[in-house]
Amino acid sequence: MRIINLDEIKSVLPKVDLMKEIEAGFIAYSNGEVVVPPVGELQFDSPPGDVHIKYGYIKNDDVYVIKIASGFPQNVDRGLPNGNGMMLVFNQKTGKPIAILKDEAYLTDVRTAVAGAICAKYLAPKTVNNIGIVGTGLQAKMQLNYLSEIVDCKKVIVWGRSEASFLKYQSEMKKSAFEINTTTNINDVFNHCQLIVTCTSSEIPLLDRVNPGTHITAMGSDTLTKQEVDSSILSEADLVVADSKSQCDVRGEIHQALQSKDILMEDVLELGDIISGKEKGRTSDTQITIADLTGVAVQDIQIAKAVLKYLP
Amino acid sequence: MRIINLDEIKSVLPKVDLMKEIEAGFIAYSNGEVVVPPVGELQFDSPPGDVHIKYGYIKNDDVYVIKIASGFPQNVDRGLPNGNGMMLVFNQKTGKPIAILKDEAYLTDVRTAVAGAICAKYLAPKTVNNIGIVGTGLQAKMQLNYLSEIVDCKKVIVWGRSEASFLKYQSEMKKSAFEINTTTNINDVFNHCQLIVTCTSSEIPLLDRVNPGTHITAMGSDTLTKQEVDSSILSEADLVVADSKSQCDVRGEIHQALQSKDILMEDVLELGDIISGKEKGRTSDTQITIADLTGVAVQDIQIAKAVLKYLP
Repeated sequence: MRIINLDEIKSVLPKVDLMKEIEAGFIAYSNGEVVVPPVGELQFDSPPGDVHIKYGYIKNDDVYVIKIASGFPQNVDRGLPNGNGMMLVFNQKTGKPIAILKDEAYLTDVRTAVAGAICAKYLAPKTVNNIGIVGTGLQAKMQLNYLSEIVDCKKVIVWGRSEASFLKYQSEMKKSAFEINTTTNINDVFNHCQLIVTCTSSEIPLLDRVNPGTHITAMGSDTLTKQEVDSSILSEADLVVADSKSQCDVRGEIHQALQSKDILMEDVLELGDIISGKEKGRTSDTQITIADLTGVAVQDIQIAKAVLKYLP
Repeated sequence: MRIINLDEIKSVLPKVDLMKEIEAGFIAYSNGEVVVPPVGELQFDSPPGDVHIKYGYIKNDDVYVIKIASGFPQNVDRGLPNGNGMMLVFNQKTGKPIAILKDEAYLTDVRTAVAGAICAKYLAPKTVNNIGIVGTGLQAKMQLNYLSEIVDCKKVIVWGRSEASFLKYQSEMKKSAFEINTTTNINDVFNHCQLIVTCTSSEIPLLDRVNPGTHITAMGSDTLTKQEVDSSILSEADLVVADSKSQCDVRGEIHQALQSKDILMEDVLELGDIISGKEKGRTSDTQITIADLTGVAVQDIQIAKAVLKYLP
């Protein structure tokens, strides 16, 4: 059994065509070729924290993968990273452990950001004057980094709650190619941005209006209670896309909009079917589209396998 | 993060009072002090195999534990062990990984055998002329090894399907203190044994009759479909005991007997309540008692913590 630490993982990632690997995973998933049981979950109160266990396998593949990713927000006050965890890779024919990727939740962050870029690739309008980022945390930066390969627009409006968070964000992004403006008024985002990525752990909708010609990727809400986007936006949208219809039935924005009867599951498409061309993505620049990412184990399977493949 | 291999684990176990640790776990569990989400499960067809992911934590403890244990029966034909897996221990306040116990499913086997001994301690009649073991696999030996500390009787009747399996069993148990007789006729078990442990992965009931003054520990059936004991025996029993009522509701012997309406869940007791004295165990030597073990994450939590505590 190989044990791979974070530095090794980071050194390998530039060799991997992550978009291709994750897209292939979504396609296999939507084709019914992937076994992904419901997400395992542990929640803690004091201090608050949660752990997601995502696991599964591609049928007739060599491996099965179990991913553990935790978030303990108060870690940050103690000088520790919020996220932690690892990915475990086992032989699908014998159960023998093959590798432990001690990624400290980094690969979860990467595959989440890559999924955001995939959504933009298939769903964003051609004309993007500004990218809107809702939130100032880790994904608020990583999403932008992976979008830079997909979207020409280099102007960004970042929404956040405080000047301190903006200063930190600006300082950490100063080496990026983006021109970053900040706002505490969410209207600036929906008025000026045609590609919006919501990256918070909010349980109260932050975005409550949308203009024609906008794509929203809602990636923060991955539980029963989190919600970043008012359900009326899903009702208004021309296309509502789930990374996994079965997961979005029980968590995330689509779950909320189903509960409030703003949409029906039969109106929701699955990302893998749009990537494969089975279903149409955006067909005009004036449409409103929204993608709800809850994070599917097939992303973890694909990124873990890719890291192993390219390791020296 | 510490990585502990099987040899280290085996060298530590003799220092641990496993009965005490696992009993404490069952008590905490039945007191509602343990968070144990539903078991995660992966099944494979070709070759057949299954993986159980059991995880959880004791409230206000230091750690949370995730246990992965797989069984691939055809491994044995390839000279590999059927079982594999590991236990992962994380900090409950930060999510930081503390240790990986590369136990190759050994700790699962041990904590399962210890649970069998605990059932015998609280539920077996005083008079045991013969111990009955149904099955000839790994647990059929381990259960006996851990029973030797609890039960004076040294006479054993082992039921199996073939002479070859008996030869293997006898040869592997020849250093034990037990006098082992074998049979292919299940009636020999129920007619002569007052303490019976069923240790198979059967999906068809093997034991269909029971005499007064018998305790049965059914430990093989841990899924929706496995069943070793006819549900009429549960209906006839004076005491039906679950390791976890919530797990036994959806897997194992109790699940089967609930489905066939041979028993009601309100008539089932939980093992931790008997250990703690909240509920009475066996009160006379003529009672029929049955314990259904499906394997609860708190056993994994307790054994993983105990190994870590006693490691040099």
